Amino acid sequence: MSQSSAAHPRRLQPGERPDLVADVVVVGCGAAGASAAIAAAEAGASVIVLEAASAGGGTTAMAGGLIYMGCGTPVQTACGFSDTPEDMYEYLIRASGPNADPERVRLYVDGSLRHYDWLLAQGMVFKHEYYPKKNTNTPGDQCLIYTGNEACTGFAEYAAPVPRGHKGQAMGEGGGSMLMEKLIASATARGVRILCDMRARSAILDDEGQVVGVVARSEGRDITVAARRGVVLCAGGFIMNTDMVSRHAPWLQHHTTLNGNPNDDGSGIRIGLGAGGASMNMNEGFVCLPFYPPASFVEAIMVDSRGQRFINEDCYHGRMGEAILKRYPERHFMIVDAGHMGDFNRPPLGGFNVTATGDTVEELEAELGMAPDTLAHTIRVYNRHAREGGDPLFRKHADYVRPLEGPYAACEVTPGSGAFFPVFTLGGLRARATGEVLDEEGNAIAGLFSAGRNSCGLPRSGAGYSSGMSIGDATFFGRLAGQSAAQSPVRTMPASA
Amino acid sequence: MSQSSAAHPRRLQPGERPDLVADVVVVGCGAAGASAAIAAAEAGASVIVLEAASAGGGTTAMAGGLIYMGCGTPVQTACGFSDTPEDMYEYLIRASGPNADPERVRLYVDGSLRHYDWLLAQGMVFKHEYYPKKNTNTPGDQCLIYTGNEACTGFAEYAAPVPRGHKGQAMGEGGGSMLMEKLIASATARGVRILCDMRARSAILDDEGQVVGVVARSEGRDITVAARRGVVLCAGGFIMNTDMVSRHAPWLQHHTTLNGNPNDDGSGIRIGLGAGGASMNMNEGFVCLPFYPPASFVEAIMVDSRGQRFINEDCYHGRMGEAILKRYPERHFMIVDAGHMGDFNRPPLGGFNVTATGDTVEELEAELGMAPDTLAHTIRVYNRHAREGGDPLFRKHADYVRPLEGPYAACEVTPGSGAFFPVFTLGGLRARATGEVLDEEGNAIAGLFSAGRNSCGLPRSGAGYSSGMSIGDATFFGRLAGQSAAQSPVRTMPASA
Repeated sequence: MSQSSAAHPRRLQPGERPDLVADVVVVGCGAAGASAAIAAAEAGASVIVLEAASAGGGTTAMAGGLIYMGCGTPVQTACGFSDTPEDMYEYLIRASGPNADPERVRLYVDGSLRHYDWLLAQGMVFKHEYYPKKNTNTPGDQCLIYTGNEACTGFAEYAAPVPRGHKGQAMGEGGGSMLMEKLIASATARGVRILCDMRARSAILDDEGQVVGVVARSEGRDITVAARRGVVLCAGGFIMNTDMVSRHAPWLQHHTTLNGNPNDDGSGIRIGLGAGGASMNMNEGFVCLPFYPPASFVEAIMVDSRGQRFINEDCYHGRMGEAILKRYPERHFMIVDAGHMGDFNRPPLGGFNVTATGDTVEELEAELGMAPDTLAHTIRVYNRHAREGGDPLFRKHADYVRPLEGPYAACEVTPGSGAFFPVFTLGGLRARATGEVLDEEGNAIAGLFSAGRNSCGLPRSGAGYSSGMSIGDATFFGRLAGQSAAQSPVRTMPASA
Repeated sequence: MSQSSAAHPRRLQPGERPDLVADVVVVGCGAAGASAAIAAAEAGASVIVLEAASAGGGTTAMAGGLIYMGCGTPVQTACGFSDTPEDMYEYLIRASGPNADPERVRLYVDGSLRHYDWLLAQGMVFKHEYYPKKNTNTPGDQCLIYTGNEACTGFAEYAAPVPRGHKGQAMGEGGGSMLMEKLIASATARGVRILCDMRARSAILDDEGQVVGVVARSEGRDITVAARRGVVLCAGGFIMNTDMVSRHAPWLQHHTTLNGNPNDDGSGIRIGLGAGGASMNMNEGFVCLPFYPPASFVEAIMVDSRGQRFINEDCYHGRMGEAILKRYPERHFMIVDAGHMGDFNRPPLGGFNVTATGDTVEELEAELGMAPDTLAHTIRVYNRHAREGGDPLFRKHADYVRPLEGPYAACEVTPGSGAFFPVFTLGGLRARATGEVLDEEGNAIAGLFSAGRNSCGLPRSGAGYSSGMSIGDATFFGRLAGQSAAQSPVRTMPASA
């Protein structure tokens, strides 16, 4: 019976009095939930945030903290970059892949400068400094960095490349926890009540199917939390739910690391589905293969077990990871040469194993067990083109193209070989850009909103992902969802017990 | 408001008397619905089938009619093939890809011989004749043919190859309409009422969320059809619903043909979602690229715009189509040689356009605008290996490997180039193999069952699809769903008006 399901909606009982009540109830206190709470409070609503963990922060607090912003932010301008809404829009549409949502991208682009200002108003500081090398984040407290495929083939032809990854002023990977401290402090200052160790279990529906609250589990008992205006689901994605991953994104089962916090278990998605919402984009995910830094490894080539190249190796590490994981269990190798040997003193994340070596390409090819004149031919053609200054086959940027000279080494970059393949999900509830959760027919579920990885938001494709898209999406559309909930009409609800 | 949604469930009104009533109500009269109806009637239930079109048949009546069966059917045995449950199981698991459902595959394999007998009992005739060449169906009234990747690399190493596509005795593509005539006649003979021009719109739920009937639209008014024991959704997939395809399987938007009937609009999936069911595998689809017949074209090689091979060209046409469509808009070419020129007198389905020709590989490569020594090298390596009798790079079967000798021609096989890319969907409601529709938590929705493309069934992957899997799945699991519904407890329902 579906009634036994954790996410199955509760019906409001006649005369039932909730334990807690607020205008807006937010589920989850990561970047999306905190932003929704702040925006709802700014719009005059009383707000309760229910957080399953013992402290707010969510997956954002574990992340490097990059935020994807553009259209000429003060940092971009100070660092000498000019960006336009047209270029940012075009880039994001192409990065979204075939599942692009033009309306959502339009809102995100047109609101980007205001979003930057909003983050400043929450206490964020962005240092006016650009980090120019290929990296997964700025290594110091620099703000601005290329975090996607902006300068790469398939994108740069259509939208002038410009860096849009912005990190708040913090060292290395500390940007996410700093952002969450600021957002939580801002929410608290606005009177938002953040209740921790409160695990939302299901929506509460009235007789008309409207969402009028949430049941949460706390200290062994169910707490009913009434929402006079709306519930905003911001409980994250489902990468920690192996059952959901096996059904919806089975290709993500081949990974080395689940990139998320333990509560990214799809509970918010399931609550929304139980209340009548639809899901979408459930098959998509982000896969990282951080083969750089060192940036010099971008000069390497990547080949499959036939010795064939398959991608422009200057692409973003997420595009590389997706391409390799989608071809699992095909083996893949990074081919480096004498010029790279020193870089192994500080190898990429997770450690790369040298699988084979050779003074000549023929020796390397033989040691890898490849058919004669396959990898050797690939390297000869690559080198011939490199001497001419380009890569006509895969159009790797000329900055990273130089002939590979022996001795050579091959590092295997297949999941299971030692290379690092962290993954997270990009599917969730179907929602309008303004947050309303929709059913499969496209009708809004009254009283239900969602943002962040709980919903299908801005990032739609592992192949086109850029770092900063998730936190950018969570904060930006979290704000919109919080506003929408705060502006929803009050429903007739019993007073708090 | 979700109440306005076509698929939003109706609540049973106090004292409401339905227009029609039966033990089991089946939505859709294709292969799954007709099989469910027959099985429910065989189990003693009164059965009503609601068909949106003016006659039963569904997409199966438009199909070639292949049915995937094995384990030593009389046809297999008479034609000299021995098949085992172990081989059939192993093949189907590998064909399902990472989203395999071992329990479902086990049931299908273990019941395959009984299913063959059941089809005979419905009046089907299978001629004991094997068609030995590569084709998309048997061209005459032969029964048995290879319809998948059984003899190909990635499968043949793990499961002894044997043909399992069975077509009822009909000429060419007439197998599907013949099958549907037999099933509909059998259902009618068992007292099943098939009501046409009755378009199911939503489920009817009682206060406990049990499905107790269906609302259907007929001649401009809503008809309520009560189901004492269960509703079985067999209304097909969603390839005709461009909105659903754009959200759930956007890669299928690049096609030449929607492979289905106009009512494959996802209405059955949406009815199930509205009643609380979950969906899965929504991103998957079947893509056909019928580059054979002529079977001689299997000797050709397929290359991308860099002149690189990417697949064993003896693979099933669906595996080829999926590989090319997944790389859209990358251009792909079939390279044929002098030995194939006569075959253009009867070119593949949809017509192939010769894009470039050359007396030598270098000439062909230049005419295609490829970089020097790319396609030419690919052909030289292929020919070198072919002279040695094999294809160590992609392991095309030796039967189809011979050196390609000039003059050469290249036919483009990219969507939009003239090649034929029909598509249909492989996602649907999450259901047990026995038919019960499940919610996202894995709990059954009481009174709701599904089979065929309305659910996520046996075929899970375009890359591993074999012809006959859909009709095999629809008839086999349609029967199980019909049995399950017929054996469900009777719910308290008002009598017919």
